[in-house]
Amino acid sequence: MTAVKPGSTIGILGGGQLGRMLALAAAKLGYRTHIFCPDERSPAFHVARQFTIAPYENEEALAEFAKSCAVVTYEFENVPAKTAEIVARHSNLRPCARALKISQDRLLEKTFLNECGVTTAPFQPFETEEELTAAFRVIGRPAVAKTRRMGYDGKGQILIKNRQDIDRVMEVTGGAPSILEGFVQFDREISAIVARSVEGDVAAFPVGENVHTNHILDTTDVPATITEVVEAKAKVMATRIANALDYVGVLAVEMFVNDKTGDVIVNEIAPRVHNSGHWTIEGAETSQFEQHIRAICGLPLGPTKALGKVRMKNLLGKDILEYEQYLADTNAHFHHYGKLDPRDGRKMGHVTWVERFRPEEK
Amino acid sequence: MTAVKPGSTIGILGGGQLGRMLALAAAKLGYRTHIFCPDERSPAFHVARQFTIAPYENEEALAEFAKSCAVVTYEFENVPAKTAEIVARHSNLRPCARALKISQDRLLEKTFLNECGVTTAPFQPFETEEELTAAFRVIGRPAVAKTRRMGYDGKGQILIKNRQDIDRVMEVTGGAPSILEGFVQFDREISAIVARSVEGDVAAFPVGENVHTNHILDTTDVPATITEVVEAKAKVMATRIANALDYVGVLAVEMFVNDKTGDVIVNEIAPRVHNSGHWTIEGAETSQFEQHIRAICGLPLGPTKALGKVRMKNLLGKDILEYEQYLADTNAHFHHYGKLDPRDGRKMGHVTWVERFRPEEK
Repeated sequence: MTAVKPGSTIGILGGGQLGRMLALAAAKLGYRTHIFCPDERSPAFHVARQFTIAPYENEEALAEFAKSCAVVTYEFENVPAKTAEIVARHSNLRPCARALKISQDRLLEKTFLNECGVTTAPFQPFETEEELTAAFRVIGRPAVAKTRRMGYDGKGQILIKNRQDIDRVMEVTGGAPSILEGFVQFDREISAIVARSVEGDVAAFPVGENVHTNHILDTTDVPATITEVVEAKAKVMATRIANALDYVGVLAVEMFVNDKTGDVIVNEIAPRVHNSGHWTIEGAETSQFEQHIRAICGLPLGPTKALGKVRMKNLLGKDILEYEQYLADTNAHFHHYGKLDPRDGRKMGHVTWVERFRPEEK
Repeated sequence: MTAVKPGSTIGILGGGQLGRMLALAAAKLGYRTHIFCPDERSPAFHVARQFTIAPYENEEALAEFAKSCAVVTYEFENVPAKTAEIVARHSNLRPCARALKISQDRLLEKTFLNECGVTTAPFQPFETEEELTAAFRVIGRPAVAKTRRMGYDGKGQILIKNRQDIDRVMEVTGGAPSILEGFVQFDREISAIVARSVEGDVAAFPVGENVHTNHILDTTDVPATITEVVEAKAKVMATRIANALDYVGVLAVEMFVNDKTGDVIVNEIAPRVHNSGHWTIEGAETSQFEQHIRAICGLPLGPTKALGKVRMKNLLGKDILEYEQYLADTNAHFHHYGKLDPRDGRKMGHVTWVERFRPEEK
């Protein structure tokens, strides 16, 4: 495989902040970007050479877009299968369509993960109330019901503690293909982020520890407060997943850790750059965004060490209006995604604090 | 003065690599950019929301451009006075037109610098051969003749060692307003880069040491191999210049150092981000590009410490084709400006090596 040379055009499906930061990283390396997104107010459009505003179902627009690009990637995993197929017909789609297919469906995802030898919560598929009742008998309580598709930030999930909750489940899933998962006791959530190159080299970033508030990521800290064994285990699992998918690009794997037992189970995978990897922009030797661009362009992967103790915090909704406070903080790196409407819970920017290694520190 | 809020549009006159890196820094802080440049292949266009392709003399296009921007800055000092005036009429021009006027003209520049109490080479203006001969009598040999305007990368300069060289001078200057400078013996060239905010705060980056090859910057090293006294002197001089201009933005001052005497004399000023400040992107707490955007938007200045021992090297012409070598170097940060034609001597990209402070280092 020959490298996609600087000066070439990289296509990105999706025009949010991830697409925007990918475009900025691509520009550093001399690439042009072409963003495809149905939303005319996409913040990624502001930093790209070309953009196409069209639905993901517009085959003609997709074909034209793909033809203009040496390689196409995506910033979200819910790219429709048909969209991915059209793009792959006219360009190189990286990561591959299989990574999309698996990460879009919790049943395929968990089945695949177990086949990789990676532990997940126990699970049972269901559609009808009868199937749910049967699944509940196998999984036990507490359990979590989730639709198989289109869940993010805790949407389409319901915790079941008793039989009365079962009625509520059917209201939420409405008979859509779903799974019932065993509730996992865990002490912390971590993210293992790895990149895999076209040649199959894998580079793992230090593991980050995530704290969610209202099901939305609030902070990521590096290093995570886990043992070296758990850190190594998490990286091995993510690497195994990337290899099994013959993956090219950055892959994020969310995991739960039980401190006492040292057990690590995988919650879900995201075949893309991830919010829990934003800390790498100033906190690691290479940012996850540059790493993804390097990988999909067939370039050598960059080094991944952390440059100190790092904390990333999301700025949601009106948090962003406090930007002067973050700009005045001499340890903070402030990022604003250029979105104009600070709706509640909307990801508007983030801040990264890096407590850099100093000569006097151990 | 109220700050220019993230989400607003920043105008940039000039679409080269400096404009491009300014646009990338603006995007990180949530700003949109509008680039004005006559060259349709400007690399800054690829990362900006809007661009205008028009000559700097097109008053209508300039007025429309300026009206679309909350603040306008520039990436080169040879912005015509009339252009600056039109922009200032319809928007906020930062840095101010006076900084442009002075830096465009070696006679005004040197006169201004001496008025600031900053040492320069001795100089005498001339136009005719008679005036040159008279100037030569005052300045002595060796001397350097330079046209007052439009000189960069050593263009329009001629070294005079003897009377025969005088004829060649008149061929080069063609009777254009020029100056004759005393030749300065120096051991090294350094750059003092400072930023001044709307409120008048000044933040200086560590001084960098420059090496030129064929009159084009080759490398910048930080720290410079100068004494603390010389470092402090250089920063004080640059600060004095910024204050005297009531300057807003990043200002670069090129200086010559005599190691034995500790003398520092100013060679020239550039009222903009500067090639010798590229090392700050990965090598300093804040990059010169972000610092410039902060300054012109009325935001607080960022911290300026170096993060280690840093070297920046320009990649000229075909140097850029060796990009895989730099990408494979785990200490190197590679930048490609997205220009497609690697003409000899053309600035195509740069590499920065940061030898970061580690716990075991002193």
